[in-house]
Amino acid sequence: MIFLYTDFGLEGPYVGQVKAVLHQAAPRVPVFDLFADAPDRRPKEAAYLLAAYVESCPPDSHFLCVVDPGVGGDRPPVALKLGRSWFVGPGNGLFELVQRRAAGAESETYVIDWRPDRLSASFHGRDLFAPVIGRLAAGASPEEAGLRRADPPRFADWPDDLPAVIYRDRYGNLMTGLRATTIARNKLIRLDGHDIAWAETFSAAAPGQAFWYVNSAGLVEIAVNGGSAASALSAGPGSGIEII
Amino acid sequence: MIFLYTDFGLEGPYVGQVKAVLHQAAPRVPVFDLFADAPDRRPKEAAYLLAAYVESCPPDSHFLCVVDPGVGGDRPPVALKLGRSWFVGPGNGLFELVQRRAAGAESETYVIDWRPDRLSASFHGRDLFAPVIGRLAAGASPEEAGLRRADPPRFADWPDDLPAVIYRDRYGNLMTGLRATTIARNKLIRLDGHDIAWAETFSAAAPGQAFWYVNSAGLVEIAVNGGSAASALSAGPGSGIEII
Amino acid sequence: MIFLYTDFGLEGPYVGQVKAVLHQAAPRVPVFDLFADAPDRRPKEAAYLLAAYVESCPPDSHFLCVVDPGVGGDRPPVALKLGRSWFVGPGNGLFELVQRRAAGAESETYVIDWRPDRLSASFHGRDLFAPVIGRLAAGASPEEAGLRRADPPRFADWPDDLPAVIYRDRYGNLMTGLRATTIARNKLIRLDGHDIAWAETFSAAAPGQAFWYVNSAGLVEIAVNGGSAASALSAGPGSGIEII
Repeated sequence: MIFLYTDFGLEGPYVGQVKAVLHQAAPRVPVFDLFADAPDRRPKEAAYLLAAYVESCPPDSHFLCVVDPGVGGDRPPVALKLGRSWFVGPGNGLFELVQRRAAGAESETYVIDWRPDRLSASFHGRDLFAPVIGRLAAGASPEEAGLRRADPPRFADWPDDLPAVIYRDRYGNLMTGLRATTIARNKLIRLDGHDIAWAETFSAAAPGQAFWYVNSAGLVEIAVNGGSAASALSAGPGSGIEII
Repeated sequence: MIFLYTDFGLEGPYVGQVKAVLHQAAPRVPVFDLFADAPDRRPKEAAYLLAAYVESCPPDSHFLCVVDPGVGGDRPPVALKLGRSWFVGPGNGLFELVQRRAAGAESETYVIDWRPDRLSASFHGRDLFAPVIGRLAAGASPEEAGLRRADPPRFADWPDDLPAVIYRDRYGNLMTGLRATTIARNKLIRLDGHDIAWAETFSAAAPGQAFWYVNSAGLVEIAVNGGSAASALSAGPGSGIEII
Repeated sequence: MIFLYTDFGLEGPYVGQVKAVLHQAAPRVPVFDLFADAPDRRPKEAAYLLAAYVESCPPDSHFLCVVDPGVGGDRPPVALKLGRSWFVGPGNGLFELVQRRAAGAESETYVIDWRPDRLSASFHGRDLFAPVIGRLAAGASPEEAGLRRADPPRFADWPDDLPAVIYRDRYGNLMTGLRATTIARNKLIRLDGHDIAWAETFSAAAPGQAFWYVNSAGLVEIAVNGGSAASALSAGPGSGIEII
């Protein structure tokens, strides 16, 4: 199966047109939305969110990933093979954490040399990345899909975990770039002057109380039982946090 | 087919991850979104909306339903069989009206004893409810799906129809918890001091005029021709109404 | 394949119920979202957006189109065949530009005489248009689908291109009703007192700078590199533009 991980939003024609292209290239491969609201034009934050959620998807899934503020510039289009999974998207750091955490696994990196007859200036997700991952998911070889072995840029100075809010969901819960495995449960998370303690889950916290918990992708997430952490703490994507 | 009825929102990873799990459990069963924006963390209002929309879905459909503010607490996970349709979700009243209105039909109630190897604290929709309804939709017996006959809590004090706004759509139309079959068309709906008369449909009302009509699920819905009832009447989910 | 082009929004039950009906009528025909947020209750603007995006969809696609503020009134339900593609929806001008630009291609126009047993007052997308296009996509003849040859109203006074903003996407980019092929790239677009020059794409414009470019559907689109044109220019759907 192919998961879509983009900042396109579900509104507008973007996700639908990508799915139609995928269907043409790989009609028997099911396609699912992972995020259509990945951190907007922020490849770094998006890289941490992606790496966490890849862990909670079935093995051998493929990932079409587009958070690409430099579309049309000089960032290369890239493809990454980890085990039997393909990742296709812009070479702007979006796969840095996926790749780093897969150290030890079989890994191959490529740039995409293939270009379509008509490449729009702004929608490489539809015109370039979707046909490539479609072909790969349908069983084409890297060469048949227009890939060439290469070593795209890495982002070695990025930390292994990002001490910041990286995603706000519809409930106002705040996902951070910290894997919960890196933090003891007696630690507090400091966010904009608030010191926030761990709770197992919503029903273990008092109504209106902010707490942090291990979310369903293994990330430290800050929430308020029966309320919105984003509103209560006046925080959102980009807000820095500290472990106390 | 399986319908999804949740308050997850379409944003974020929630609906997509649930669909991927359903696909793994029941690859040949098509899945459709009914509501991803059911009344947010309000099982009672959500129960009336669900009961109305079940009526407008094809017979023998299955329903994966998650409006579950008590996730991780002591509400039981439940399954309900009505005729050939399965309903799976939290035992917090969400199925109260579906079950009550099906009185007379063949009905079986279960609690879910099965637990996955990894059960996240907050996302039972993906980890618990989706695998169970997927197996049931694919033809597993209740026992194979990990169900046990039981009598989950009922909510007998809830009224048969709920005199309140339960849903606001993108046009600003306001759905109520009242079935239109319970109200004569010469009745007025009183909402926050406004007395609102019936009209057949939008084009039968003057531009800018508030009216109530029978919506496509058979509920009393308040609308404004060419405008937003929510804005014009300063009302939304939770606003009480009276029949005059 | 069938594309959905509506102003239903993705929230609520509308798109999902339409897809379930399409699946029942044409289970082997894949369905994709084109726009669920077409210009809200504005068939004229929606007609220009539709015509542009039809061009970027695969040939022989079908289009279920509902921007229908007059639902239940006297606008006829119509079907249009262009080549091997079917368009089904309200006869309120929504297909005017598609039809005009296809001049020369094989074209047939119909009104829909068929009515379902239960036709809701407000949701003809689900009850009337979806079953009809489903049958047509599954191979039914116009007669079998309940169509009758006719000449629905045309809107000859609408211009060939619309000098106005017709869509705002999630990034704040502003699509206009102007095909880029009609404008030289040394022209400026005047919007609310701002004179905006062409750039190839985002990375060719300075950060924070407004520019116009040819979007992925061939329309003139106004954007700000790293920002929101809608916010920077205080503009949105309906704002008029001039070519300077």
